[in-house]
Amino acid sequence: MKLSATRRGVTVWLTGLPSAGKSTIAHRLARRLEAEGRTVMVLDGDEVGERLNKGLGFSKADRDENIRRISYVARLLTEVGTAVIVAAISPCRRTRDEARAEIKRFVEVHVQCPVEECIRRDVKGLYKKALDGKIQHFTGVDDPYEAPLNPELVVETSHETVDTSVERIVSRMRTLGHLPPERSEGLGNERLTPIQSTSEA
Amino acid sequence: MKLSATRRGVTVWLTGLPSAGKSTIAHRLARRLEAEGRTVMVLDGDEVGERLNKGLGFSKADRDENIRRISYVARLLTEVGTAVIVAAISPCRRTRDEARAEIKRFVEVHVQCPVEECIRRDVKGLYKKALDGKIQHFTGVDDPYEAPLNPELVVETSHETVDTSVERIVSRMRTLGHLPPERSEGLGNERLTPIQSTSEA
Repeated sequence: MKLSATRRGVTVWLTGLPSAGKSTIAHRLARRLEAEGRTVMVLDGDEVGERLNKGLGFSKADRDENIRRISYVARLLTEVGTAVIVAAISPCRRTRDEARAEIKRFVEVHVQCPVEECIRRDVKGLYKKALDGKIQHFTGVDDPYEAPLNPELVVETSHETVDTSVERIVSRMRTLGHLPPERSEGLGNERLTPIQSTSEA
Repeated sequence: MKLSATRRGVTVWLTGLPSAGKSTIAHRLARRLEAEGRTVMVLDGDEVGERLNKGLGFSKADRDENIRRISYVARLLTEVGTAVIVAAISPCRRTRDEARAEIKRFVEVHVQCPVEECIRRDVKGLYKKALDGKIQHFTGVDDPYEAPLNPELVVETSHETVDTSVERIVSRMRTLGHLPPERSEGLGNERLTPIQSTSEA
């Protein structure tokens, strides 16, 4: 069964600091893409890790291996036509680039937020533990986050609402051909050219 | 997007001794299901293991963990509507039952073959190594294979051709509602009742 380009699988890879807003965006985006008729799967780094990474620790090598496993699962799901949304800190640029090479239909979104704001949010209370020295190798505190050099999109969660970030991702996916052109509501006729998102032009 | 029951995902889990014929059946079955218009993914235990199991060894606990990871990936793929075919020795009954409970839409097929015939085939040369004592914990030699007590189907690869085994699996999938009723070739009218496979009655 051949799928048209806009119905084929794709992975939207959300990378960013802890508490930057990746999971929130992931789940909102999932509902948005389901409304577009897509089959969607969210792979949350923490949850996937619990199933695939027993025995792995927090060393750089182990965390890279974690990302490689998520990448493998995202590839399989993408191959069968799923719109996959990965939410994972994935701090290492090279490992993300490996994921891009493996998955191919890949939209890297940097979920950007100043570390001070992430510390203020501290959704899981882990920044406090890291700053208190109770946990080591915490990205943004004592471990580096390597921001993407050339992501498909940057969303800035300290400036924009979740809905805005989600709509910008959807718009970018349309521009890249991962979603069909937007329908004009009420008229039923489709635009023949992809919507250009001026913010990413 | 709601899929009809016969278009929803399903996992066909092929379990059996090394060299019993699981991979051969898996790939032939994949082509057969693709011809039915299904999106198919084969998860071969060895290949998946290479990607998900770095650091795991050959202890019983590690091999069970291997099967749990395959089960998790099969579940995700089944959830998005894939016809997943797992080919894995998966010698432990309890771990297979966990996979069934997790995946839910699950067709367990015991790929049965007398161990003497498997040793004769020895596709990967591993029986010889195990019998020579060069590798340990080899299922069928110095590690037990726990045959399914109540599988959806048993295929006997020492008695039947690959095509026969594949057609019996397809027939069983129809009976269980995982594939639509067979169309009468040339007439275009569909039978309204599932095909009953007399061999499984």
